[in-house]
Amino acid sequence: MRILVVNVNTTQSMTDSIAESARAAAAPGTEIVGLTPAFGAASCEGNVESYLAALGVLDCVLKYPEPFDAVVQAGFGEHGREGLQEALSVPVVDITEAAAIMAGLLGHKFGVVTTLDRTVPLIEDRLLLAGLRQRCAAVVATGLSVLELEQDPARTVAVIVEKARQIVREHGVEVICLGCGGMAGLDEAVARATGAPVVDGVASAVTLAEGLVRMGLSTSKVRTYAPARQKQIRGWPFSS
Amino acid sequence: MRILVVNVNTTQSMTDSIAESARAAAAPGTEIVGLTPAFGAASCEGNVESYLAALGVLDCVLKYPEPFDAVVQAGFGEHGREGLQEALSVPVVDITEAAAIMAGLLGHKFGVVTTLDRTVPLIEDRLLLAGLRQRCAAVVATGLSVLELEQDPARTVAVIVEKARQIVREHGVEVICLGCGGMAGLDEAVARATGAPVVDGVASAVTLAEGLVRMGLSTSKVRTYAPARQKQIRGWPFSS
Amino acid sequence: MRILVVNVNTTQSMTDSIAESARAAAAPGTEIVGLTPAFGAASCEGNVESYLAALGVLDCVLKYPEPFDAVVQAGFGEHGREGLQEALSVPVVDITEAAAIMAGLLGHKFGVVTTLDRTVPLIEDRLLLAGLRQRCAAVVATGLSVLELEQDPARTVAVIVEKARQIVREHGVEVICLGCGGMAGLDEAVARATGAPVVDGVASAVTLAEGLVRMGLSTSKVRTYAPARQKQIRGWPFSS
Amino acid sequence: MRILVVNVNTTQSMTDSIAESARAAAAPGTEIVGLTPAFGAASCEGNVESYLAALGVLDCVLKYPEPFDAVVQAGFGEHGREGLQEALSVPVVDITEAAAIMAGLLGHKFGVVTTLDRTVPLIEDRLLLAGLRQRCAAVVATGLSVLELEQDPARTVAVIVEKARQIVREHGVEVICLGCGGMAGLDEAVARATGAPVVDGVASAVTLAEGLVRMGLSTSKVRTYAPARQKQIRGWPFSS
Amino acid sequence: MRILVVNVNTTQSMTDSIAESARAAAAPGTEIVGLTPAFGAASCEGNVESYLAALGVLDCVLKYPEPFDAVVQAGFGEHGREGLQEALSVPVVDITEAAAIMAGLLGHKFGVVTTLDRTVPLIEDRLLLAGLRQRCAAVVATGLSVLELEQDPARTVAVIVEKARQIVREHGVEVICLGCGGMAGLDEAVARATGAPVVDGVASAVTLAEGLVRMGLSTSKVRTYAPARQKQIRGWPFSS
Amino acid sequence: MRILVVNVNTTQSMTDSIAESARAAAAPGTEIVGLTPAFGAASCEGNVESYLAALGVLDCVLKYPEPFDAVVQAGFGEHGREGLQEALSVPVVDITEAAAIMAGLLGHKFGVVTTLDRTVPLIEDRLLLAGLRQRCAAVVATGLSVLELEQDPARTVAVIVEKARQIVREHGVEVICLGCGGMAGLDEAVARATGAPVVDGVASAVTLAEGLVRMGLSTSKVRTYAPARQKQIRGWPFSS
Repeated sequence: MRILVVNVNTTQSMTDSIAESARAAAAPGTEIVGLTPAFGAASCEGNVESYLAALGVLDCVLKYPEPFDAVVQAGFGEHGREGLQEALSVPVVDITEAAAIMAGLLGHKFGVVTTLDRTVPLIEDRLLLAGLRQRCAAVVATGLSVLELEQDPARTVAVIVEKARQIVREHGVEVICLGCGGMAGLDEAVARATGAPVVDGVASAVTLAEGLVRMGLSTSKVRTYAPARQKQIRGWPFSS
Repeated sequence: MRILVVNVNTTQSMTDSIAESARAAAAPGTEIVGLTPAFGAASCEGNVESYLAALGVLDCVLKYPEPFDAVVQAGFGEHGREGLQEALSVPVVDITEAAAIMAGLLGHKFGVVTTLDRTVPLIEDRLLLAGLRQRCAAVVATGLSVLELEQDPARTVAVIVEKARQIVREHGVEVICLGCGGMAGLDEAVARATGAPVVDGVASAVTLAEGLVRMGLSTSKVRTYAPARQKQIRGWPFSS
Repeated sequence: MRILVVNVNTTQSMTDSIAESARAAAAPGTEIVGLTPAFGAASCEGNVESYLAALGVLDCVLKYPEPFDAVVQAGFGEHGREGLQEALSVPVVDITEAAAIMAGLLGHKFGVVTTLDRTVPLIEDRLLLAGLRQRCAAVVATGLSVLELEQDPARTVAVIVEKARQIVREHGVEVICLGCGGMAGLDEAVARATGAPVVDGVASAVTLAEGLVRMGLSTSKVRTYAPARQKQIRGWPFSS
Repeated sequence: MRILVVNVNTTQSMTDSIAESARAAAAPGTEIVGLTPAFGAASCEGNVESYLAALGVLDCVLKYPEPFDAVVQAGFGEHGREGLQEALSVPVVDITEAAAIMAGLLGHKFGVVTTLDRTVPLIEDRLLLAGLRQRCAAVVATGLSVLELEQDPARTVAVIVEKARQIVREHGVEVICLGCGGMAGLDEAVARATGAPVVDGVASAVTLAEGLVRMGLSTSKVRTYAPARQKQIRGWPFSS
Repeated sequence: MRILVVNVNTTQSMTDSIAESARAAAAPGTEIVGLTPAFGAASCEGNVESYLAALGVLDCVLKYPEPFDAVVQAGFGEHGREGLQEALSVPVVDITEAAAIMAGLLGHKFGVVTTLDRTVPLIEDRLLLAGLRQRCAAVVATGLSVLELEQDPARTVAVIVEKARQIVREHGVEVICLGCGGMAGLDEAVARATGAPVVDGVASAVTLAEGLVRMGLSTSKVRTYAPARQKQIRGWPFSS
Repeated sequence: MRILVVNVNTTQSMTDSIAESARAAAAPGTEIVGLTPAFGAASCEGNVESYLAALGVLDCVLKYPEPFDAVVQAGFGEHGREGLQEALSVPVVDITEAAAIMAGLLGHKFGVVTTLDRTVPLIEDRLLLAGLRQRCAAVVATGLSVLELEQDPARTVAVIVEKARQIVREHGVEVICLGCGGMAGLDEAVARATGAPVVDGVASAVTLAEGLVRMGLSTSKVRTYAPARQKQIRGWPFSS
């Protein structure tokens, strides 16, 4: 089985670390292909960047030359999943929803610790649309930008742990979701420090995608995600 | 005051009829500039087309060379409004929300009559995110595609009227929203036939945009729509 | 166009300042008529006073001798809008809903700063009924009574600013609504101090009412607000 | 214990039948006093009439010369309960909420059968505000006006039964609320015909009021229903 | 009228004090029978104990040899009410729902003060299912276990009062529910100290059960709580 | 990895077919152990049976003598998952939630086709508690009892297909969940006939459980599902 794990930004080192996390989570026999969009922002921390990512991810998936069995969109709180579901016949899993789903299986209420405060509403909106917000007790920001996450991993873990403890104490949170693709790989350190399960979206999405493929299930084509009607499209795909 | 009214698809005749509706609704002294994206689909009836529209609209607004006071995004149920709000300092109004707001001022419950069934979930999702879904009793489809709307206006009105009457009778709908930019201008005919107020999103959005400008109000920059952080963006804007 | 802007209490100076705000917001050619109920409380800060206001407003609108094009009910969180909508054929806009609508166009979440804590639940209830509560992150009280607002404007602004900053910081609020008709005119000072857009309900309602009139739209008469059935009414209208 | 059961309209025969139902439901030792407002409509079937009722009920309760232990507001879907709670120190129970509460104790979902379609939204709004709407699966109208209910009781029962059966069959309703004070006394006939429990709001409200009194509980005065602040009120109470 | 008031745990002294509270609330002529399950935990403070209680209560009610008119399940936040409703033809009232109902009649928002933090989610879940959560502003824990409640009543009252005051101040709570059957009898002391009405679930449930019986109402048998289908049951009832 | 797949009823043939479905879905190397409760009903179609199942499942899991890595509770709409989560340190997945989760990944709205109408509210309640109800557009019954499902598989498929088509057509459902453990294995036939993805809860739950185990995640022990406090339990476990 081959799963495309697509970064939402154009930073190759981030694609690499996401793909590494994906591989660590994948079952034997699953090939993980990390993809980086040909256009877009070096990190996604806002609305324009998120809409760019929606097309950047779609673009690089559509031009991928080999067959594949599923796609993981590896941006937390980003746009685009619906477009992939419509354009493809294989299952598509977004890491925001994947993390929320796995967290929901592990405790009564979960929380998300993310990067900058400005991205909190984007995450809240994605959870609301996915019908996964009821049991999310808090989405909080560390104040670290996406690209700062990798600069000082020890500090990064420390700040995440502090915020995680706070929402456990004040909001009844029982499970922590790492709210950024760039936090992949930090789950164990945060879990050790907090005593709560910590869910990584990339690992969760790979696991769900593998599961859907093994069950022979894919996106419904009866309505919302039916193939697009034939029509004139101007100037797309961008990178062809 | 100059308002950019941006079509979400690349069909120039549709931009023209939208701009005409906008002008009919505008106050004296308001200049309406109709814009057509440089890339995208001939009509928006799905998720990929909607995400394309999000960037197509943003792209043509950003390259517009003159000053302007507000932007109306003239696609019903389409993506992109958040990106415009972040990128611009002037107010942005989406016709989906504008129609729902005006309808909410006119009756206890409203309904939307749109084009194809596949676009219903997109409209529902936009209303949900905007916090405007509680009083929307029904979103229903005529089965006419966007480009069919103009082919036989009499038939178009007849089909909209039939669906409008049905949701008045069966769902307690008291106000009808025309759920497609391409339906602009049909409101009076549908109102005459149904006896219920009929709200056109383009007229509503122009009216709201003018109002915000006159009140000196624009998008908050304190969090979600703060200017994007400085960073490397690759391959954007597309049409520059 | 003539718009009746009706105060909900019997304090004439408050009607005057509300009408002044309304005039400042109105388009050229709009005549603003400020009305004061013939009965009711000197200020509305509770449930009995609010129900009194519902009839006081209706009473003075019904006996107004000249034609008019729209009505603005200028009480924040008060009862009565539904009665006006039923009794009249012209559009009716309540300032609570108008403020929430405009705020919703300007940011992801908004908040309301009002007078006394006891009026908070009334505002919450009106927003809930109007389907406008989802994006309201906080309704908070300054502790100033309605009539205290005008006594020391500098102090009033200072207290509003303090509460506004608090809900921006703690509740993710991005836009502030001034939650009392008596706060009309303070929006600019509060905006300057907080850096967030500040929405005045009176200006918003006048703007929306003008827009509805210009679009030729009025309250639906198909169900909830159909004209009352003919029947014996005893002792009403009170002031005839 | 003395309970004031206040009709919301000015039709004395309706007050009498409501009081009779109340007495049938009351415990031994409970004195039921039926009151009719001095002003208002002969029947409440709309928004103006409902706001009139809010004050008419308050007015006649405030001028009642003897001590009393609780008040039942006997209008289904009417305004006014909050004002009574603020003005009085004894418990106040509205029949709409009372019926919904009792119905909720008897089945998974309940429904309401009321008079005219135009009153359905008022009932839905009262249930929404009271936080009692989640388990209400349907509010439906018989098409009979309030005053028609008594003209041909057999027909009235037949029409209610037909609507009740429909919502049991189509909406999963398990318990029926009679949605009008004027339907008091029809519960047994409807229950026999449908096989479902039928809840009368007047009996329910008397029962709840008695219970609160016996438990020594009354309206909280800590915030929403604290006594009104001392201030000038002009022209009230109306009937003094 | 005979009402079975069933403790959810196996501590006889707790059954006794619950029954005493029930008797204090009951009308003259109502016989209260306190029952203790033959199996289960000495106190219910978690999920296994709650599921055990569901069957323990059912078991001891089914084997009760005399006729009875209603059942009160006297555990706050516990499972089991639906099973009783299905198995019995008489009304069943759960103290969690009863407290929330009575509190809802007394103020705009209510709160619950319970024992251990781990039981908070169980209470929240029961209120959610019952459709009674909208107006519950807070469920908070004292940190006292169920069996500690009786050890030092003065301390118990002090801790409850402290938490009650906190949620009045911080969450807009106007009415306090005592969130444990073992708190029965403390309502007056807490009310005196806080100035807010304090609702005891046992007294509330007895009152509601008496009311349903007097109105001749019982659980609907048309769907969810229809008698179980005839089938082979192995190993049940446990204690026969 | 060893997963216990526990039937909720005492019918061994049903355990066998559930285990067979589980094995078909499991990854190589996963051992599926089918368990049948020692007590309970031959089929679960109601509230008492569901509460019995909660303990029956817990009982047989607790006495299972070998180590295991996860538990799947194979009853659709049944009680008990919370108890297992508290009692065990390994992950627990309920098939109701698992089906809803997988369906949510495949379409905009999903629906459930179950057995008898009386079980619909139980399924709705489980989805509500799990926070998974927002995107569930319909839960409908075939009218076939659990044990009838296996009697005439062709008829069973035909009836499920008919109901599935109806909710696709009338409720916008895009994905079908088979709403009974006894429907395991019918997914492909229903999918072929309807053209929509069909989700089997048993396969979904096994897949999710495997995924959680592989990710090293298990139930949070910080609050709701912390180990029970040490205390006296009388008469439990039942079957020891």
